[in-house]
This record gives sequence, C-alpha cells and structure tokens, in this order.
Amino acid sequence: MQTIGRVAIKLAVADKEELPSLLAGVVRSGYRAVVGKVGSMTAEKIVAAVETAVQREELLEDGYRHVHSLYHAIIEAFYGVCRGQLELGQILRTVGLNFAVVRGPRALPAEGNGDEWLAVALYGTIGAPRKGFEHEVIGLGINHL
Amino acid sequence: MQTIGRVAIKLAVADKEELPSLLAGVVRSGYRAVVGKVGSMTAEKIVAAVETAVQREELLEDGYRHVHSLYHAIIEAFYGVCRGQLELGQILRTVGLNFAVVRGPRALPAEGNGDEWLAVALYGTIGAPRKGFEHEVIGLGINHL
Amino acid sequence: MQTIGRVAIKLAVADKEELPSLLAGVVRSGYRAVVGKVGSMTAEKIVAAVETAVQREELLEDGYRHVHSLYHAIIEAFYGVCRGQLELGQILRTVGLNFAVVRGPRALPAEGNGDEWLAVALYGTIGAPRKGFEHEVIGLGINHL
Amino acid sequence: MQTIGRVAIKLAVADKEELPSLLAGVVRSGYRAVVGKVGSMTAEKIVAAVETAVQREELLEDGYRHVHSLYHAIIEAFYGVCRGQLELGQILRTVGLNFAVVRGPRALPAEGNGDEWLAVALYGTIGAPRKGFEHEVIGLGINHL
Amino acid sequence: MQTIGRVAIKLAVADKEELPSLLAGVVRSGYRAVVGKVGSMTAEKIVAAVETAVQREELLEDGYRHVHSLYHAIIEAFYGVCRGQLELGQILRTVGLNFAVVRGPRALPAEGNGDEWLAVALYGTIGAPRKGFEHEVIGLGINHL
Amino acid sequence: MQTIGRVAIKLAVADKEELPSLLAGVVRSGYRAVVGKVGSMTAEKIVAAVETAVQREELLEDGYRHVHSLYHAIIEAFYGVCRGQLELGQILRTVGLNFAVVRGPRALPAEGNGDEWLAVALYGTIGAPRKGFEHEVIGLGINHL
Repeated sequence: MQTIGRVAIKLAVADKEELPSLLAGVVRSGYRAVVGKVGSMTAEKIVAAVETAVQREELLEDGYRHVHSLYHAIIEAFYGVCRGQLELGQILRTVGLNFAVVRGPRALPAEGNGDEWLAVALYGTIGAPRKGFEHEVIGLGINHL
Repeated sequence: MQTIGRVAIKLAVADKEELPSLLAGVVRSGYRAVVGKVGSMTAEKIVAAVETAVQREELLEDGYRHVHSLYHAIIEAFYGVCRGQLELGQILRTVGLNFAVVRGPRALPAEGNGDEWLAVALYGTIGAPRKGFEHEVIGLGINHL
Repeated sequence: MQTIGRVAIKLAVADKEELPSLLAGVVRSGYRAVVGKVGSMTAEKIVAAVETAVQREELLEDGYRHVHSLYHAIIEAFYGVCRGQLELGQILRTVGLNFAVVRGPRALPAEGNGDEWLAVALYGTIGAPRKGFEHEVIGLGINHL
Repeated sequence: MQTIGRVAIKLAVADKEELPSLLAGVVRSGYRAVVGKVGSMTAEKIVAAVETAVQREELLEDGYRHVHSLYHAIIEAFYGVCRGQLELGQILRTVGLNFAVVRGPRALPAEGNGDEWLAVALYGTIGAPRKGFEHEVIGLGINHL
Repeated sequence: MQTIGRVAIKLAVADKEELPSLLAGVVRSGYRAVVGKVGSMTAEKIVAAVETAVQREELLEDGYRHVHSLYHAIIEAFYGVCRGQLELGQILRTVGLNFAVVRGPRALPAEGNGDEWLAVALYGTIGAPRKGFEHEVIGLGINHL
Repeated sequence: MQTIGRVAIKLAVADKEELPSLLAGVVRSGYRAVVGKVGSMTAEKIVAAVETAVQREELLEDGYRHVHSLYHAIIEAFYGVCRGQLELGQILRTVGLNFAVVRGPRALPAEGNGDEWLAVALYGTIGAPRKGFEHEVIGLGINHL
C-alpha cells in the first residue's frame, strides 16, 4: 500500500541516482513532493532549508495555517534525528541530511473526504565535527493540512 | 552505498511480500538481521518484543555489553516514534510497529577494523485507540557493539 | 482585542459563578466553546475527558483530521501543566483541572480567509495526593483545524 | 477565591488599558506584583528581563535563596511557553511576551503561617520570525520563597 | 570544604560499613541527614520512600512549603538517575538505590544569614530486570527551604 | 566493593589535595583515569574539554567506536548536571565542573570476560552568572566500550 510516510521516507533515503525516477513515480501516483539537502550544526538552518524549499516549489499555500502545519512536521521529524534534545552544535554534533516533504492523502487510494496531510522525512548522518565519525539517523513528522 | 541504517529502515518499511527477498539480499551482503512485529499501548512491550526476537535468533551474545547496546538502540529508535515523550497509553495513544535489528559494519564495504554496529528501526503507525485514527511513524537507533 | 487563546484561558480560569455569563459572551462574539472539569493521577484520563466533552458537544467534525488537531492541542496544554515530563501519578502527583476548548478564528475580527483554529486551556492545581498540598498550574495548546 | 496563580495570569493576560486598575486591585488585596514586556528569540533574554524587573522593583530580597526561587519559577513558566523544548531562535521561532511576577500567600485569605510564594506568568505569542505568523502561548511557574 | 551536596553524595555512595561513622561526622559538623534504600520499577515508589523517611525522621516541618521543596529536590535527583526520561518500568528498566537527604547551609562554615538548603542524593544501579545486567547511576537535587 | 562509577564519582568530587593519592590508588587497583576541570556557559565546551583530555591522555583508541561511546557517556552525565534540558547559557546559567573519565571493568574483581566500560562523572556548581549564586550538581554516564 502506498502511504504518505513511506513515500517521504523512500525519497529521503534514496541515492542521488534513484531519486529522479522515484520522484516521477510519486507524482504519477498523485502525491506532490519536494526534496533537498542540508548540512548544519544549527537546527535553525535545517528548519529554514526545508521551509525555503517548500516555499520555492509552492508546495503549500502561503498562509499561516500551512506554515504552522509544516513547522510542526519538521520539528517532529527533528526529534527522530536528535533522539532526546533538539540540539546540534550546542552539544558538539553536526548533521548532513536529505529531506523530503510530501503533500497528499494519508494513503492511496485516498479516503474520498479530500483530507490532505503533510509528511516531512529527514535522513542522513549525525556525528562529531570530524570526517567519518558519524552514523545514520532518520526522522518523520506527519501533520494535517 | 549500502549502510546499516538504510538496511534496517528498508526492512522495517517493507511490505510482507517484499520482506523475504529483501532479507535474503541483506544476508548475502554480509549483514545479519532480525525482523518482527509488535502492537501495544505500553513502551515496555515494544522493548521486550525486540529484545526477545534478538535473543531467540541469537543475533547478539548473551552478555550485558550487547544487551546494553541493544537497549539504548531501541530507546533511541523509540524517540523517533514518540517525538517528545516516551509514552504511549499514558497519553492515550497506541502503536503498531514493524521492527528490524541489523548487525554489521556501519557501511559496506566494511572499514577493515572489524568494528561492529547495531541498528534498530521501528516503523508503523501511531494514533488514538480507534481504527484508522492513526498516522505513520519511524525511528532509528544506532549503537556500537 | 479578543483572541482564541485569551478566550480559552478566561474560561478555564473562571469561577463557577462567572462561567455562564462568560460562555454566553464567547458565543455571542462568534466563538464556539466547550468547558468541563477533570481530576486525575493519570494523563490518559485528562486527554479522554477533554476528547469526550468535545465529541459530546459536537464541537468538531468526527474525522481523524480534527481529532488529530485536538489531540496535539491537548498535549501541548499538558506541557504547561507538567512543566518538564508528561507524568502525574508515575511521579506521585495529582491534578484537578478545569478545561476549555475553543473553536474559531485566531483573533476577532476574523481574518476573512475562513481559517479556523482550536485552543485548549487547562487550569487548576497540581500537587501531592494530600489535601491542600498543591499549587496552581496552567497550560494552553493552539492548533490549526 | 483569589489565588496567587490567578492573579499572575490575569496580570499577564490583561490589555494595556486594564492593567493599571488590575494592578491597583492586586496591591489592595495584599499581593505585591511586577509586570513587564519582553520580545526575543533567545530564552536567556526572557529570563534576564524578568529578573531585572524584579530586582529593579525590589520585589524580592537580594540573596541567592530568592533568586533561586525566582529562576525556577521563570523556567517552569517557560515550559508552558515552549511546550517541549526550551528553545526559541535555535528552532527558528520567536516570542513576544507580557510577564507578571506576584509575591504573597498561595490564596487569600492567607493561611496564617506567614508562608510566602512566588508566581511567574508569561503570556503572549510565539511564531515564525514573520509578522502575523504566530499564535498565543501561556506559562505559569509557582515556587516557595 | 564541606558542602551540602558533597555530604549527600558521600552518604549515598557509602558502603554499609562506612555509613555509621560518616553519619556521625555529618551530624557533628552541623548538618542533619536521613539515609535509606529503595528498589523499584516505578518512580512513584522512589519518591514515596524518600518522603516517608524524611517524615519519619522529622527532618522537615510538616507544611506544604517544605514538602514542595523536597519534592522538587527528589525529582531533580531523579533526572540524573534516568538521564532523559523519568521512566523506569515503563521502558523496562529497574533501579536499586541508596538515598540521602541533607538539611543545612550550602557550605560550612555557614553564611551567617541562616539560610537553609536541602540536598537529595540518589545512588545505585539501573538496568534490565535481570540480575547483574545493570550499571551505576547517581543524581543530586538541591533546593532552598 | 570498588566499582567504575564510584571511582569516577570520588575522583570528580575530590578536593585538589586529595586528588593525587586518590588517582594513584585508582591506577593501582587496575582502572585507568583522566581528570580535569572546565567552566563554561556552553555545553559544547564541556563536551570538548572532556574529549580533549581523553585524547591527550590516550585513554581510548582513536576510532569512532570509542569516541561514540565517550560522547554518549558525557551527554548522560550532562543530564544529571542540567536536570531537564541540556542548556546552560541559553537559559542564563553557568557551570564550573570537575570531570573524571574512568576506563575498566564495571566492578573489581573483574568479571573475567575482559569487558571494558567507560564512566564519566561531572561534579561542580551551577548557577546564575554572579559569584556565589550557585549550588552543587553531579552527573554520571556509563557506557560499554
């Protein structure tokens, strides 16, 4: 079964080579999606990078309701990345992340009530600010639009 | 590139039909893995279900060092599932999860130093104790053995 | 200026005698509201009491979108009550709370885009399970519908 | 019944026009209070603004005991504002807050044992660093002096 | 220099054989102290065991102010024991703890202002509910009286 | 009984005068240890100070496994210091800490399986950035190597 969370996870986890065909499949199935990459020692930049990509691609409407929904989905995904405290550089760690934001029904085929949801997946590595001293992380946040 | 976290995520996210061939591929690539399912309103049962499966399949050695490593990997994955507070029924929510535990090098080809790591992925749904009132969640915990 | 959060706070903080006229004023101003009381040592019962009152008064639509929005607003309000860990009896404390759930625009006059929001206010006392060994607490959660 | 928490909440929630007469009533009833405003993206400035106002108005004695009591009351109120993680700018959000600090008995009429308590209420808005993209928040911390 | 925290830590960490002479020295130096032991999978019992010992030994006055101070000192010590989430059995772990509660000045010689403080130290082991699968933990909470 | 956690606690709590003979005894008993001091308003500097001391004294091997183990032990000890949120200057507080890192078996005599563990103890004061407005704190993190 195709579900909004799985779609976001698969896009975030995909290699650069797999991404274009995956994205095309996602669009065909009726979801809309934005993907990108961001590396940083400050959580603030992760939030900003995802919000900016969503805005640039016009995935959401530009009112506070949608921005509020997106913000909370990003923060929830960030909990999975941080596992405990939403801090990066403040506790001397850094991340390199792929992100995917997906808009659509919770699952396909859609329920028919027209309800739309948002999924944000973050996948990449976390570690010391020293090459190779890092391991993988993932986070997923889902919110109603 | 094949990495321990991706392997665990893909196993946890897989449909029942995809699982056997995925597992076979994982084993061929040199990782060892255990998968299972657990649904509960108590975190305690999630931890116990994963620990029991690992023990039954003898994925780890039966000393405290490995059990300690596994415990922390499960709890870290559980942070992604809970996004804030490690509580299920206490705040009136329930989960249905697939789990995958993978043992091996952080990435393939292995570094050559023989270091082994452990990845625990949890994927499924969280929601109200009412059919269909739920959305997806994921969590990943990685620890050194 | 009348705002959804202030309306919820005032309803939750009101004495029994003030409540009827306050509620009438709220309805006249265009908001819809549900109020109630709940005392418990388990967070789960607080969540259930608020959800049940909202359902009984049909303040929201009966789909998952609205239930999801309400759930998160309750949990956010509960953070203010607990100040740190969403636990009551588990750490030997108990609460007696008034609750107010308000539906409508973020502020009056409404923005004109028809956006609706939800505010949940919890106000009362927290303390040891011993009469009079308690002090006041408040929490407010606001979410988009 | 007049209680220290309600007094602090009402002062923090009050409009500029209501404040003077409210403050006068609070003083007549036997409580002492300090109010102020602070907007910031850093939690540190919120703490400092409240501490400075209290010091300037000489609401408390200048030893560590009272400063310790005030500090914890501020942090507890801040939990209600942040609902999860005590972070503002680090996760790209900003607040504009009224604060009220009240000193006196837990409730009137006083218990007669001379015990004094401290209540800190924070009320205002939280949101993205973009005008109007914000909603209300409240927090209350109560501590013994 | 003798300080209230160190006194509590040393009492909590002491072997059964060292305890009587240590306690005698503490009393001679001007501090008052209560010690005890508690093992449990529920945080609630830890809190209750410490509160009961303090009450039985009449270390504090029986009003809410002192009980409030003690409660917060216990919870702060418990943060050191739990390192993240104040949960034991709910996440399948158990503790065996020594506790020490000390009342007196922050340091000796006392400041001369008569200020009294309270220190709660918890020391012991945390682990799986399986003999020997555990490691040490410590926590310290200090509050003004 | 001599245990790795107690050794770390005693080293961190020791006065400057006691430290040399304590350290000599620790080494004789078969543990290896590093001690130091750090004062800061940023958590990042605490982590860096401990990591640098460990590296300089070559207490651990220079691969990611040991660095990962140390990092988590430091963060767990830091939970005891912060009691709730891993933040210092961001919430206007500062620490002055002794640290001790100990490597060896969980307890003496060793279990015979050759398992090695790591203990990090942090002890000192936390408080307002104002001389004397501070009290003691302790934290302990233990991890498998």
